[in-house]
Amino acid sequence: MKFGRIAVDTPDGEQIRLVAAEPDSGRVIDLARSYALTLQRKGAEPERARELALAVLPGSLAAGLGGGSIFLDAAHDALGAADDASFAIDEVSWRAAVDSPVIRDGLTFEKHIQNFHRIVAKAQPARSIYDRPGYFKGTTAMSYGHNQELPYPDFTEQLDWELEIGYVVGKSGSNLTPDNAMEHLFGITVFNDFSARDIQGAEMPIGMGPQKCKDFGYGIGPWVTTMDEIDSLEGLHGQVRVNGEVLSDTKVEDFVYTPAELLAYVSISDRLQPGDLIGSGTMGFGAGVEIGTFLKPGDVIELEVEGVGTLRTPISKEREKAPWWPEPRQYPHENWVA
Amino acid sequence: MKFGRIAVDTPDGEQIRLVAAEPDSGRVIDLARSYALTLQRKGAEPERARELALAVLPGSLAAGLGGGSIFLDAAHDALGAADDASFAIDEVSWRAAVDSPVIRDGLTFEKHIQNFHRIVAKAQPARSIYDRPGYFKGTTAMSYGHNQELPYPDFTEQLDWELEIGYVVGKSGSNLTPDNAMEHLFGITVFNDFSARDIQGAEMPIGMGPQKCKDFGYGIGPWVTTMDEIDSLEGLHGQVRVNGEVLSDTKVEDFVYTPAELLAYVSISDRLQPGDLIGSGTMGFGAGVEIGTFLKPGDVIELEVEGVGTLRTPISKEREKAPWWPEPRQYPHENWVA
Repeated sequence: MKFGRIAVDTPDGEQIRLVAAEPDSGRVIDLARSYALTLQRKGAEPERARELALAVLPGSLAAGLGGGSIFLDAAHDALGAADDASFAIDEVSWRAAVDSPVIRDGLTFEKHIQNFHRIVAKAQPARSIYDRPGYFKGTTAMSYGHNQELPYPDFTEQLDWELEIGYVVGKSGSNLTPDNAMEHLFGITVFNDFSARDIQGAEMPIGMGPQKCKDFGYGIGPWVTTMDEIDSLEGLHGQVRVNGEVLSDTKVEDFVYTPAELLAYVSISDRLQPGDLIGSGTMGFGAGVEIGTFLKPGDVIELEVEGVGTLRTPISKEREKAPWWPEPRQYPHENWVA
Repeated sequence: MKFGRIAVDTPDGEQIRLVAAEPDSGRVIDLARSYALTLQRKGAEPERARELALAVLPGSLAAGLGGGSIFLDAAHDALGAADDASFAIDEVSWRAAVDSPVIRDGLTFEKHIQNFHRIVAKAQPARSIYDRPGYFKGTTAMSYGHNQELPYPDFTEQLDWELEIGYVVGKSGSNLTPDNAMEHLFGITVFNDFSARDIQGAEMPIGMGPQKCKDFGYGIGPWVTTMDEIDSLEGLHGQVRVNGEVLSDTKVEDFVYTPAELLAYVSISDRLQPGDLIGSGTMGFGAGVEIGTFLKPGDVIELEVEGVGTLRTPISKEREKAPWWPEPRQYPHENWVA
């Protein structure tokens, strides 16, 4: 199945609803509504059916996944009443496919590591990148769904994208191993780790990882495709299009660390939580910096992953200017003696 | 007021309850219970009073803060029925004082920056640390409250603490300035950014910030003290005790960037969310590495901040061993040509 999240108007204002997407038949199914109808056919009172359906299939995919088997069972049962709870797929307002408790992003594809260091860092990749599957953590406050407009931060002249697989965690787990980690993977989505390359260079020497160079926007969507629909992650085709023009054709290959190893590593002394998103790291030639181009205001970027779908993001025409930016402080260590 | 979170047994299992702590009178007040009693005295039916009270004063402090003024008003009203909903302060099971949507940790005290670079990095602090208030993000999955035991990760031989102020966000905000950022600060807590120093050194060259060196445990508590109880952040006294012995006496001073500047900077193109915790960075001599000592299994560490309280963490006697750790990969760039 393909699970997405859309926004609808209600008397209480905008509400997020969980949907099953059926791109082939051009529709999305409101899962709580269709499950309520299913429960009614089995004898539930209408109001009680609605309450139960919203409890099991809430607008939060993370909360839904926390229900375990009751969640997936209900989603499948709900499809029986799909015809009475569907919308045209082109007419819904998408939101980030998953509301993740924690967003982490790895670095697992050799070709991108090589390209990035040759072009951006202009230095040999660190040995440590091959010692363990590194990752950073992103703010969960700035997630964008399919077709949602990304503000263009005024502080960057190098707004870039990154084509990644987003691994979506289905159940919690600590201290996993590569042998059992994949049982905790619910599905995959397309993940766009938008990046401000000039800011990235300025932040790296601080040694605390990415901050403003990443935390202005994460694209997550269009939906989460469950693993039973994916024959193999390895070999999945990926494509980058800007304003309709194909800029990169690539595929999932050259894992430095496999998804199973990445998930297991993340879980050591930490905990995977239902709904957590872990980015694969950028696929080879999956970022603009690898092919010498960046995004301009008004551009439209599409990232496609075979078997999942296309995540489309229009970039705002205006730049968003923050009213304040820190002044550099006086540097007190000119005459440093270690 | 001082807001904390405790765990209690119920017929449905453990439940987290929001409490007001009154250390001087030796009690904590169950806020939802006391607010329900207040509502009953104003004419509410008992069951409805309970539902309303739990909606306004839930176990999630982040969710509660999201209610804005209704939350604080209810908490104050609740104190009128405190005598009928109190527990002895020494007998409750504390949990992390706030369940933060995002944990960020800054680097704002000059003395610690200096000590850390002299002793750990053995290098001059980067100029970039003084160009902007850097910070990293921590997993929200591994938070520990007052008196909760911290597992000792087997992968480190250098388990360390960091004495910090935890700034707790009260309301959401984007693109703030130092002039208005403090309006978004709800209160402060004691934050222990536990660290594995040997792992930190191994992770830094990856360039993605802290991972395993931080994400095994964050101490948050004992409670969140609201800003009206704090005359001034600057000058607050801090103390570190291990097994009862005072190892560091320090204070809040030498801000490279002020709390207002740190909060404003975090909010640029990102969003502060109610309940977010932003660490101040370590106070001078607030970490073991600065004074040449680390934690052993079975140690008890106490961090005290004047005006807030003491966060006590027993370290487990046994080491927690993960069943798997990644093997280093072959390094493919020995003959790198940039």
